[in-house]
Amino acid sequence: MSTREMSSRNLTQLTDFYQLTMMQGYFYSKDVNETVIFDAFYRSNPDGNGFSIAAGLDQVIDYIKNLHYTKQDIDYLRKTGYFREDFLEYLANFRFTGDIYALPEGTVMFPREPMLKVVAPIMQAQLIETAMLNIINHQSLIATKSSRVVHAAHGDGVMEFGLRRAQGPDAGIYGARAAMIGGCIGTSNILAGEMFDVPILGTHAHSWIMSFPDELTAFRKYAELYPDACILLVDTYDTLKSGIPHAIQVFQEMREKGITSKRYGIRLDSGDLSYLSKKAKEMLDAAGFEDAVISASNDLDEYLIQSLKNQGATINSWGVGTSMITSKDCPAFGGVYKLAAILNKETGEFIPKIKLSENAEKITNPGNKTIYRIYGKDTHKIIADLICLVDDKFDENEPLLLFDPIQTWKKTLLSPGTYTMRELLVPVFKNGECVYESPSVMEIREYCRQEKNTLWDETRRLRNPHEVHVDLSDSLWKMKNELLDTYMVR
Amino acid sequence: MSTREMSSRNLTQLTDFYQLTMMQGYFYSKDVNETVIFDAFYRSNPDGNGFSIAAGLDQVIDYIKNLHYTKQDIDYLRKTGYFREDFLEYLANFRFTGDIYALPEGTVMFPREPMLKVVAPIMQAQLIETAMLNIINHQSLIATKSSRVVHAAHGDGVMEFGLRRAQGPDAGIYGARAAMIGGCIGTSNILAGEMFDVPILGTHAHSWIMSFPDELTAFRKYAELYPDACILLVDTYDTLKSGIPHAIQVFQEMREKGITSKRYGIRLDSGDLSYLSKKAKEMLDAAGFEDAVISASNDLDEYLIQSLKNQGATINSWGVGTSMITSKDCPAFGGVYKLAAILNKETGEFIPKIKLSENAEKITNPGNKTIYRIYGKDTHKIIADLICLVDDKFDENEPLLLFDPIQTWKKTLLSPGTYTMRELLVPVFKNGECVYESPSVMEIREYCRQEKNTLWDETRRLRNPHEVHVDLSDSLWKMKNELLDTYMVR
Repeated sequence: MSTREMSSRNLTQLTDFYQLTMMQGYFYSKDVNETVIFDAFYRSNPDGNGFSIAAGLDQVIDYIKNLHYTKQDIDYLRKTGYFREDFLEYLANFRFTGDIYALPEGTVMFPREPMLKVVAPIMQAQLIETAMLNIINHQSLIATKSSRVVHAAHGDGVMEFGLRRAQGPDAGIYGARAAMIGGCIGTSNILAGEMFDVPILGTHAHSWIMSFPDELTAFRKYAELYPDACILLVDTYDTLKSGIPHAIQVFQEMREKGITSKRYGIRLDSGDLSYLSKKAKEMLDAAGFEDAVISASNDLDEYLIQSLKNQGATINSWGVGTSMITSKDCPAFGGVYKLAAILNKETGEFIPKIKLSENAEKITNPGNKTIYRIYGKDTHKIIADLICLVDDKFDENEPLLLFDPIQTWKKTLLSPGTYTMRELLVPVFKNGECVYESPSVMEIREYCRQEKNTLWDETRRLRNPHEVHVDLSDSLWKMKNELLDTYMVR
Repeated sequence: MSTREMSSRNLTQLTDFYQLTMMQGYFYSKDVNETVIFDAFYRSNPDGNGFSIAAGLDQVIDYIKNLHYTKQDIDYLRKTGYFREDFLEYLANFRFTGDIYALPEGTVMFPREPMLKVVAPIMQAQLIETAMLNIINHQSLIATKSSRVVHAAHGDGVMEFGLRRAQGPDAGIYGARAAMIGGCIGTSNILAGEMFDVPILGTHAHSWIMSFPDELTAFRKYAELYPDACILLVDTYDTLKSGIPHAIQVFQEMREKGITSKRYGIRLDSGDLSYLSKKAKEMLDAAGFEDAVISASNDLDEYLIQSLKNQGATINSWGVGTSMITSKDCPAFGGVYKLAAILNKETGEFIPKIKLSENAEKITNPGNKTIYRIYGKDTHKIIADLICLVDDKFDENEPLLLFDPIQTWKKTLLSPGTYTMRELLVPVFKNGECVYESPSVMEIREYCRQEKNTLWDETRRLRNPHEVHVDLSDSLWKMKNELLDTYMVR
């Protein structure tokens, strides 16, 4: 049930037209079973964050499992006039038969690391690029944003309230999923709650108040129905003169009737949230409602929450909408997908491939790679990540020399016994069969929380975070520089 | 076929949890058939544009037609513990029975105007708020952004290339649809092409080049297969030293073989696009390929396109991805949905409702309203829009006095015979039955183009556009101010 909607949709045609023109090109010009390696990675963290959160893999799995062309799809492609019959026949029998390795969802990741690696016949590896990037880019973006907002709230609960401003239904549904992974305590989105078994939250809107003759009647009715989740929205007419006094009156009436509420309080949705929250706290305390929740919404983001906290606002529950569900300051995650190697059938070895650029940071890492994360043995914090070739061998009982891949004179020598290593990429598909079982969203959320605990506070801060080193192994660095030399001679 | 995917999905649970808690509240505290009017409107145009483009109605129609609770949905709601059995039973038989009026897709619209009006039992009007806003906010946002990008391209074709950076599958699919409405000539998104019968475009990626032993071989293979759509990507290794010379060599070989191409040329995807396009033009012209397409991509937006044009870049085809599909500078459209009136069953009249705010612009317009657009009889350009009550009568043969609703001393008197009026909202649902047939996306695109021709150039410019007046009729203005007086006395 976890992905009811997505798994029932055939997203095979959710790809760029050029993937199909290239596939037909491969079909007529080379062995369609030529095995290649593609890496999905990204070049910078959104919002200047110190890291990103991997998310979306479960939906990529559903997409891959469901890959097939319907007759309607084939008919449509025929109608475009670009494709020949034997290629269309090939598509009719198309399915994914390759291998996929990926970072588990909720993993802390850094720029230039393969988030996902595909080892598959070139036709298949090419087709899946677009949908796979679409899904991972979206969810990793929102999980990373949510992680920032949750960080700013410093232990207070953050609720995901953005569905109406999300970029379409999926952005609301999978955005809520990703926001949960990043640390939210619940979402207003019922469908997301139903699909992913995550808490759904919310009380009432201004229209509830306006549909009754007066605010007090509206509050009373609400309290009668939902005594245990009685958060009253107080800004329909006048927060301080009407909303809060009426809310207090209703809480007093509940108390007089002997009704004890599990969770009661107010929600502020406009005005100066710092001032109003302090006034609200005074008024609620004076009436003996010290444990009332003071919840706030209204175009909040991580900076506003941090600023309100610095101002001493007495808000202890945050509803965040537009800024989180769209990752407003940075609404795209720049994941790309690049060819890294082609199998030489005769030798059985992968021929490394590289994409050049005048910008050194944009040159791709060639070869069949994996990632090791290096932790301090005592601190359990991340020392660095090491991108290496799958054949590289490491021994924690030996010293490990790390060096910056561009400024190679910057070196660190780790002594034996002071560090541990963990391989980050896990097998997801083997020969087209899924070999990975996704944890539940709430399990991923908890794993993500632990992942963030492996970062120093300096890397978690919102502005100018300390950068975690991502180095290349000696063998990968040499392979890359040999390839660069080859091309530069031309 | 136009909305294959969306129409097969049940999005009934795509709503905020508070809609359901309020609905249960109404169920137990008032007549569930109480008829209300809600208006969807927005307060400011994205990106400081002078107008917005209405889009998404066709998907709202599908959503409303498909509204129903499955047994699985009801079971889920029961499990939350918030809902009682007789309310759940009511939901099991829930369907939409009300009226909806809306701006046709592609209509130019302005802040504070009802884009969509719902006249329905309160339970129904409340439920549909979230999904309806989600759909309209998203598509109107992207249609408006695309309209800006197309404006900047000044007649050159703009191609939508953003799927991989869109916020999930729907953002790619419906974003492409909206981008077409805004004026793009095609999309790379095959599924959008299939669902909405719009042109699909694209050629090949860097991986095509890298999968062959060398660039020249890759270009030759591509030209053999697609002589009539032969746009070669020239920046894999070195644009000026390798890519363009190899492309020219292939075009020459085609010419020598007597192959005439309908569309051939190059695509630049990195580097200084102004400089490279001019150099490319020189090289292509010198070889006798004056009609070669010079296409560009790489994080383009309306400002970069305008700047490149100002610099004399010789690009004549634009591929726009991330910035358009996410509306990067302003990734949310602020559509809201507010209660405007409640039917008094005894008198049969609507009791107007208002939501107050300390900010005059945020106070809602009460009552049962519609919009008239006033055009200059000679110019066919928009003079102003007039929000009025549905009972207001106008006569084009009488003078018409317009006044600013806040600075009421600002007045304009239109003489009889100098203006024409057109009502903008059209009936979409009547008593739950759809009475509107959506045009095709390409028809909406053409209507949108005509709509933009009713704006003065000063309103269409990208920065600091001239603002079109949106006024209130005399009767609406009086109703609003009487309500304000009532509340302010309290």
